[in-house]
Amino acid sequence: MGKNIDLCLNNIYQFIPKNIIDNQKVAAEDACKALHRGSGKGNDFLGWLNLPSEASDELLADIENTAKILQKKCEIIVVIGIGGSYLGARAVIDALSNSFVFLQKEHQFPIILYAGQNIGEDYLFELQSLLKNYKFGIISISKSGTTTEPALAFRLLGEQLEAQQGKEQAKQLIVAITDKARGALHTLAVEQGYKSYVIEDNIGGRFSVLSPVGLMPIAVAGFNIRQLIAGAKDMQYETSDNVPFEKNLAMQYAAARNELLKSGRIIEVLANFHSKLHYIAEWWKQLYGESEGKENKGIFPASVDFTTDLHSMGQYLQEGQRVIFETVISVEEPNFEKRIPTDTANRDGLNFLAGRRIDEVNKMAELGTMLAHIDGNVPNIKITMPKLNEYYIGQLLYFFEKACGISGYMLEVNPFDQPGVEAYKKNMFALLNKPGYEKQSEEIFLRLKK
Amino acid sequence: MGKNIDLCLNNIYQFIPKNIIDNQKVAAEDACKALHRGSGKGNDFLGWLNLPSEASDELLADIENTAKILQKKCEIIVVIGIGGSYLGARAVIDALSNSFVFLQKEHQFPIILYAGQNIGEDYLFELQSLLKNYKFGIISISKSGTTTEPALAFRLLGEQLEAQQGKEQAKQLIVAITDKARGALHTLAVEQGYKSYVIEDNIGGRFSVLSPVGLMPIAVAGFNIRQLIAGAKDMQYETSDNVPFEKNLAMQYAAARNELLKSGRIIEVLANFHSKLHYIAEWWKQLYGESEGKENKGIFPASVDFTTDLHSMGQYLQEGQRVIFETVISVEEPNFEKRIPTDTANRDGLNFLAGRRIDEVNKMAELGTMLAHIDGNVPNIKITMPKLNEYYIGQLLYFFEKACGISGYMLEVNPFDQPGVEAYKKNMFALLNKPGYEKQSEEIFLRLKK
Repeated sequence: MGKNIDLCLNNIYQFIPKNIIDNQKVAAEDACKALHRGSGKGNDFLGWLNLPSEASDELLADIENTAKILQKKCEIIVVIGIGGSYLGARAVIDALSNSFVFLQKEHQFPIILYAGQNIGEDYLFELQSLLKNYKFGIISISKSGTTTEPALAFRLLGEQLEAQQGKEQAKQLIVAITDKARGALHTLAVEQGYKSYVIEDNIGGRFSVLSPVGLMPIAVAGFNIRQLIAGAKDMQYETSDNVPFEKNLAMQYAAARNELLKSGRIIEVLANFHSKLHYIAEWWKQLYGESEGKENKGIFPASVDFTTDLHSMGQYLQEGQRVIFETVISVEEPNFEKRIPTDTANRDGLNFLAGRRIDEVNKMAELGTMLAHIDGNVPNIKITMPKLNEYYIGQLLYFFEKACGISGYMLEVNPFDQPGVEAYKKNMFALLNKPGYEKQSEEIFLRLKK
Repeated sequence: MGKNIDLCLNNIYQFIPKNIIDNQKVAAEDACKALHRGSGKGNDFLGWLNLPSEASDELLADIENTAKILQKKCEIIVVIGIGGSYLGARAVIDALSNSFVFLQKEHQFPIILYAGQNIGEDYLFELQSLLKNYKFGIISISKSGTTTEPALAFRLLGEQLEAQQGKEQAKQLIVAITDKARGALHTLAVEQGYKSYVIEDNIGGRFSVLSPVGLMPIAVAGFNIRQLIAGAKDMQYETSDNVPFEKNLAMQYAAARNELLKSGRIIEVLANFHSKLHYIAEWWKQLYGESEGKENKGIFPASVDFTTDLHSMGQYLQEGQRVIFETVISVEEPNFEKRIPTDTANRDGLNFLAGRRIDEVNKMAELGTMLAHIDGNVPNIKITMPKLNEYYIGQLLYFFEKACGISGYMLEVNPFDQPGVEAYKKNMFALLNKPGYEKQSEEIFLRLKK
């Protein structure tokens, strides 16, 4: 492809002088080396580092083949998973899908829906009602198979699929992505003969999008996983520990955001000017929030869709508390072309734009916003993607992952654990009187009585 | 109905002693009085205060009648508007719609889509492609008719509607909601004879959901605007300035969040445990962010959908920087019933839940999360809605509006202006060489050359 996604830090230097960022060279390079050598915290979860270069033709062909089978048999695929087991796939699928795919009257590929990402009684009721009228399949993604949300959803939808298609046919319509040796979903998959893919022990959920966890749903949705991997692979080399700080986008981004944090900017707002990037931001929030939000540290990750949210969060960003910096993802070229028509009456006064592309207006909104926010004391980082396609999305995802590992090490936390996520689960199990939680149940009910 | 939405502050008192909140009684009551007397800042924008009690049967019947006409003629209604001109309608429509309405095979009412809320070339291209296959109508919402985003969308879609339906029929399929006397959309509506509704001068966008701006799209989508108004009206009386602090939910919420802010909690995370409330949170973010984010003040409003985001933002909320408080909207009763089935093999270990309602698990997740976050030093405010229906949504919306006015006054800002929103627009017009912006264009291009 030649081109790459690009990172521009020029518009933070009036807030944090360039030499202060550049002084992080050694720290950033050391952090990157620690990742590659496996000498840092959480080094049992570094399997994601080489996923792009190690993705075998065999694996990709296998996934593509499974995708073809599901595509032939299903109108809807329900992806069951939560957190890192669904956000990566959803981010890529939303970025590449038609904005109105649900309403299109003809579909070349199955429609992707999600379940097990909440415990919504109304949601599951409505989903099951809908699926009665469709031929559907399931991709069930869970390392253990016992995480409450996806396990519940799989119980309901697995039962429904068997009822609609018969036990034998249902087995052909379920794909499991799970542990290679143990766990409830693994056991079930072996017993029932589900087509299965492995979640390696050394890959955490939020770093799993380039493994079968992300690739399988993305392939079923009709997108090119080889291009996704190719982009990620190029970025893997571009951000390697042998690429020095000055040329290494991941190190640069990590250094910049850590210095911005030190200067009191405790909120990073990831902004896009393309509505299809909404779920990329949701994925990014998990990636950074879960990796860095520990030991009372970390940047609070937030996101906005522009220009939409310039008319909601814009006022705050411009003039609220000055604790924010902004990272903008800009897509250089739209995938379609649409020009602004002339209107003889010109009542809306827009004829000065007639004949110009809509994206030109969008780009001037983007530039105008950057200038306005700089004037408002909001430092601006810009990430440019040449186009919204599989290849550049692959680059973007890997860039963010690599920068996150480096950034976490620079912040001196373990970017690969998530001890705080267990807290609500323990309470929930105690409140539900789950077997094995008798002591915790006793304690929590005592606490509630007070 | 009898029941009301409820506010619980018990789980902030271990962080901010109750007497400190209660000490705000006079300030909160004064702020509320200032709203009712029109003696505070921004008092030319208080038209929203009495919208529920002043909504006439005549207006509601007129809107319902227009809705019926559009429902008969259209499969899709495109609501054109941005910021407050679309978020309120979208919040209510999403909260009340089937989660999979786009995929349902039969529709009693038109599907609602949105345009003019961005400047997306791909978005508009794909929308126009889709609409070629549907009978559609337009509700165009803009005070001036010259806001760039909606004006552009209306140019494109108005032209398309005329091309598909003919000039005369198109006029019957367009509803304008705009200024009563001037502006581009007003002029056009009069000329073309569009059915029109008025945006009163004294109602700002983010406070307009209970005016025709929100009511018209909500009615077309098939929902009961009288119940919505009834709920809002009851809440109007419950939060009036003659209801003392101790019983006034709006004053209580306003006082609590201002004290939490003073204690260093600069981020308020609005959390729901019901996926349909997602856009209520988007609406709330505009309401509070735009009303309070000025003069370098204000709480940064963020939102999460639980349990989904417990697996993304959960780690940060539990253990990240301690600058957060949380406001949870809890829906007491789901609209549908679904129980957890038994599974003989019980490989997922969920049989201890068999026979119980899914919502019971959700409620224990909610309670477990609250306890975990309190333990993690995150104060918790809880808002309870008995059910997700028009009446209680009406209560909720008015509650948030009233509390926002009071809270803004307690923060000593003008909660009814949004001076910062103009900054990016001015730059954008200068960059696009808009007639009348010659001087600004010269300046901005000079600035960019540097």
